[in-house]
Amino acid sequence: MTTRFGLLGAGRIGKVHAKAVTGDAQAQLVAVADAIAPAAEAIAAQYGCEVRSIEAIEAADDIDAVVICTPTDTHADLIERFVRAGKAVFCEKPIDLDLARVKACLAVVRAEKGVLMVGFNRRFDPHFRAVKAEIDKGTIGAVEMVTITSRDPGLPHLDYLPRSGGIFRDMTIHDFDMARFLLGEEVATVTATASVLVDPKVAELGDFDSVNVILTTASGKQAVITNSRRATYGYDQRIEVHGSLGAVAAENQRPVSIEVATAQGYTRPPLHDFFMTRYTEAYAGEIASFIKALATGTAPSPSGEDGLAGLLLAEAALKSVAEGRTVKVAELA
Amino acid sequence: MTTRFGLLGAGRIGKVHAKAVTGDAQAQLVAVADAIAPAAEAIAAQYGCEVRSIEAIEAADDIDAVVICTPTDTHADLIERFVRAGKAVFCEKPIDLDLARVKACLAVVRAEKGVLMVGFNRRFDPHFRAVKAEIDKGTIGAVEMVTITSRDPGLPHLDYLPRSGGIFRDMTIHDFDMARFLLGEEVATVTATASVLVDPKVAELGDFDSVNVILTTASGKQAVITNSRRATYGYDQRIEVHGSLGAVAAENQRPVSIEVATAQGYTRPPLHDFFMTRYTEAYAGEIASFIKALATGTAPSPSGEDGLAGLLLAEAALKSVAEGRTVKVAELA
Amino acid sequence: MTTRFGLLGAGRIGKVHAKAVTGDAQAQLVAVADAIAPAAEAIAAQYGCEVRSIEAIEAADDIDAVVICTPTDTHADLIERFVRAGKAVFCEKPIDLDLARVKACLAVVRAEKGVLMVGFNRRFDPHFRAVKAEIDKGTIGAVEMVTITSRDPGLPHLDYLPRSGGIFRDMTIHDFDMARFLLGEEVATVTATASVLVDPKVAELGDFDSVNVILTTASGKQAVITNSRRATYGYDQRIEVHGSLGAVAAENQRPVSIEVATAQGYTRPPLHDFFMTRYTEAYAGEIASFIKALATGTAPSPSGEDGLAGLLLAEAALKSVAEGRTVKVAELA
Amino acid sequence: MTTRFGLLGAGRIGKVHAKAVTGDAQAQLVAVADAIAPAAEAIAAQYGCEVRSIEAIEAADDIDAVVICTPTDTHADLIERFVRAGKAVFCEKPIDLDLARVKACLAVVRAEKGVLMVGFNRRFDPHFRAVKAEIDKGTIGAVEMVTITSRDPGLPHLDYLPRSGGIFRDMTIHDFDMARFLLGEEVATVTATASVLVDPKVAELGDFDSVNVILTTASGKQAVITNSRRATYGYDQRIEVHGSLGAVAAENQRPVSIEVATAQGYTRPPLHDFFMTRYTEAYAGEIASFIKALATGTAPSPSGEDGLAGLLLAEAALKSVAEGRTVKVAELA
Repeated sequence: MTTRFGLLGAGRIGKVHAKAVTGDAQAQLVAVADAIAPAAEAIAAQYGCEVRSIEAIEAADDIDAVVICTPTDTHADLIERFVRAGKAVFCEKPIDLDLARVKACLAVVRAEKGVLMVGFNRRFDPHFRAVKAEIDKGTIGAVEMVTITSRDPGLPHLDYLPRSGGIFRDMTIHDFDMARFLLGEEVATVTATASVLVDPKVAELGDFDSVNVILTTASGKQAVITNSRRATYGYDQRIEVHGSLGAVAAENQRPVSIEVATAQGYTRPPLHDFFMTRYTEAYAGEIASFIKALATGTAPSPSGEDGLAGLLLAEAALKSVAEGRTVKVAELA
Repeated sequence: MTTRFGLLGAGRIGKVHAKAVTGDAQAQLVAVADAIAPAAEAIAAQYGCEVRSIEAIEAADDIDAVVICTPTDTHADLIERFVRAGKAVFCEKPIDLDLARVKACLAVVRAEKGVLMVGFNRRFDPHFRAVKAEIDKGTIGAVEMVTITSRDPGLPHLDYLPRSGGIFRDMTIHDFDMARFLLGEEVATVTATASVLVDPKVAELGDFDSVNVILTTASGKQAVITNSRRATYGYDQRIEVHGSLGAVAAENQRPVSIEVATAQGYTRPPLHDFFMTRYTEAYAGEIASFIKALATGTAPSPSGEDGLAGLLLAEAALKSVAEGRTVKVAELA
Repeated sequence: MTTRFGLLGAGRIGKVHAKAVTGDAQAQLVAVADAIAPAAEAIAAQYGCEVRSIEAIEAADDIDAVVICTPTDTHADLIERFVRAGKAVFCEKPIDLDLARVKACLAVVRAEKGVLMVGFNRRFDPHFRAVKAEIDKGTIGAVEMVTITSRDPGLPHLDYLPRSGGIFRDMTIHDFDMARFLLGEEVATVTATASVLVDPKVAELGDFDSVNVILTTASGKQAVITNSRRATYGYDQRIEVHGSLGAVAAENQRPVSIEVATAQGYTRPPLHDFFMTRYTEAYAGEIASFIKALATGTAPSPSGEDGLAGLLLAEAALKSVAEGRTVKVAELA
Repeated sequence: MTTRFGLLGAGRIGKVHAKAVTGDAQAQLVAVADAIAPAAEAIAAQYGCEVRSIEAIEAADDIDAVVICTPTDTHADLIERFVRAGKAVFCEKPIDLDLARVKACLAVVRAEKGVLMVGFNRRFDPHFRAVKAEIDKGTIGAVEMVTITSRDPGLPHLDYLPRSGGIFRDMTIHDFDMARFLLGEEVATVTATASVLVDPKVAELGDFDSVNVILTTASGKQAVITNSRRATYGYDQRIEVHGSLGAVAAENQRPVSIEVATAQGYTRPPLHDFFMTRYTEAYAGEIASFIKALATGTAPSPSGEDGLAGLLLAEAALKSVAEGRTVKVAELA
């Protein structure tokens, strides 16, 4: 079975997904839509597909599934439209920045018995998957502590920040999802600290650039997330899980693995400087997983509920910072 | 100038300090005291010093300084006695497990204009010192985040735990001191989570075996401490400091640096399995630093106040766990 | 300008090159030929190109360049035919296992002013390129010693060995080329030792499975190559260059970068187990370089002469082993 | 039983051995001799032993063993004198730079049934010992290839070089011994290349500063030794052994294990810059091994014959370079 795809959004991420879809022998890219015509046309030319309107894709008989890579504030609407149109939906994270809107959207998905996968791509990074595989094999025994270090090479453009939803909803959300993925048990409490150390303009926007979060589960497992919006040495993305029988860690990635030795010491190059080069394999992997789920009729994962759970933890972290206390997730759900 | 030493306590740590004192060309070990005569005699025989009573050492004209390695509950009394006797005092941590007792003891030291150094040996680990040196050189710019991972190979004997003061006062206190050492700014708030994952008997004792702590300073710097009482892979002792211009990390230490490659992968040996082998150089370094301070007439560091500050953070962490909130250090001081 | 390609050979390597050609925006795969029709048809179907005979590709007006991935014993003939037909030629190594045949072939290429690139793909491995880039930047000063470790996961099929040309022509030849690439000066002498340690059947075939080679240049630079046909831990491919100001090394590559810590130690997974996964990027890189050379009218590199030079060093190594002495390359040229 | 020691030579290495002897609970340093009186007196003062003449030590009833750390050209004479005097002898390498002299000396030792240990300290480096232990445990199966990289931080003083015996006898000899230690089979052939790349003055002295040597055994095992007299990045001392079931490697050592990450990359400090800091534990270990052998009445190892075997390989390497061919060790024995 070949899954026939429509692509909504031909921007940076749209191109990545176009490549992933066309590179998969079980998928076919039928059409692409974008408000900016030349962007859509470029993808159409490169991959031999059509340019269509969103409405045309919605109505199309020759399209089984869509990949939504449009701006965040259109996600929830498009998910609802396309599950109603009977298409399977892969949507970039987040579903929405507003908790109520996400819940409403997921209610529609459920009502329509729609198929929805949310783009938490990091679950598909081969290194992180290998960490998960070791946990699942029992190598480290019972999971006790998860440590996630996640630092960006630099602040996003300051005009993006106001519509980012803030660091917890924009950046930490990936780590919330990863913590949930690795803990193997739902998060019960969230405790966070946050400050502005990178750029005082971030404070003017009411946001933070340096945060730490501790998550706990009912059985006492703990996860620590450390975020900074700026690391001169590159895109710092490490995961470590400590358990009763051992630990497993995924190391940082760099474009080339060389080491230069001089009188000043032994130097390896900086890390990747961009999430799209760091997570190249993860982007391809998530689309492959979506295609496979559709082919086998299984529920794609991470689900819309996973998207909601991540956002809930972001809300709880904000509340924790505001109130200087540990917040129970149940307070918000 | 040669500093003439009396050693109080001939146990495990006493032996370590005896070796450090005798190995220093500027020091001489004159006498050793211990309630268990054979222990004192063994040190006396090996290093050619006398066995004396504590009282005799207190009264001795030929002794300038003492190293206190007796049980914890005698520390504060002995510090007071020996500063009153005009001896310089190096005391193993902690001064006492009780905050009020520590404050009273330090009041005596101040009143007597006594010289007191507290044995936070990790400040003298060559790797951690090198981390500090890079910070001081400005290599990483302004310190923003300190991450300290500290895991013991295994639980201490369960009969030790009740008199340990609990994990925060017994184990985390080293990390509190290290965080203070590296942050370069006093800690303003403490937020902690704690659970029992290693052994349910720890819970019966009202203690924890798995904790995370976030410290913040007035300017928004943050430090994260992760502790577990059990790591199958050895004595896990890592430090990482992230700053505006970069980061610096001290790696774990193992007895031998080999790597075995087989069809199962590339394996390096486990870490040190004992704090005394892990911190061999640190123990020697702290005594050398004490001797040097005495020789040059400078104040030895870490001081009694550093000992107090560490204990204060332990108290704050306990309060944070109990009340589920961020605790201001000022609440306790 | 788009270069239009014909692919000769639809086997394992043919598929790799088909992907590289179609993935390059400046290239188009027009036709594929293979004696085994289904192999050619599969590539044609996947990439939307035609199946043609070798003769038809030779005569085609719509093809500018060919990639030769047919069996080794056809390489020299095909190179001659296609340069005579005015096509640019990329040929998998080796041109031929016989020195005289290679020289005759290159004479035809020169006479026809043909364009020929030989597939020493490792020059395009990003890690090895980064090593070369550091040398070229002057980071390590004058190159003095090159150390190349190259071990296969396991012996090739024993029925392949008799037509492999022997370990020096089949396996070490890659390292000879890499040594030439990195030394920056022609090799003057070759000294080799060789034995059979992996499988006695290799000795029955008159071949070796474990060899060491030292190369020297006129100015005294030295390169050491270590080869084994079997490494349980994976495809061991390391390069290290020592110079007057420092050294630079390319580390081994593994599919995932995780580390598992248990009571038995810290274990990272084995290396890649196959040259095609180890050198994925190198295969794509060499074709991209060929396309770029054609587009810019520069001579592609490595050239036919590089192919000849590598073979010459293999001959010299064989002679060195046979005669138990250092062989001057000039003796064979 | 306590072994009572005389120390011959109070220079740099003498001090190291004095510390090792006095630090061993089963040994006692009774006397030290040195032509330079203040050197001997300093050691006597520090460790509470006597200064005596060589003759007095030779005649002493209260001395069981001597450690010879005098200049190389006195070693053979002193070994003969002291075995004749019935003392057990530990002698720094080499016994002598002249093969005939070494053989004559060992004949005396045999005739006198003397006890002689030669100071190839690297066998006692804990990392290299751990490599050997893995081989002995069978972890890597049958040893096939040994790779030893040994580079000095810089050239010795040029006035030392003429009496050093040349690079093979002075520097490579350690690696010859290590190769013998690890191969587990005697070396049958030696093939070497040598050049002057570091300093042309080395060539004026008829010596080399950059060499590579391949050793083979009767069964076809091979060892490669790479030496340079100058490495800007420190004292480069690596060992790697490849076998039928895997490989084991000892990594380089540095004084502190930190890593600094900046926009320029991840940098670890240079290696040790001096053999005495790199091999601190090895020096202590070899003396401890000597003391233990005496205490248990076993033959100390490495023996005088090991000293001879190393020198023989150095001679063979010189001959190989001079004649441009593989030299059989049997030609020289």
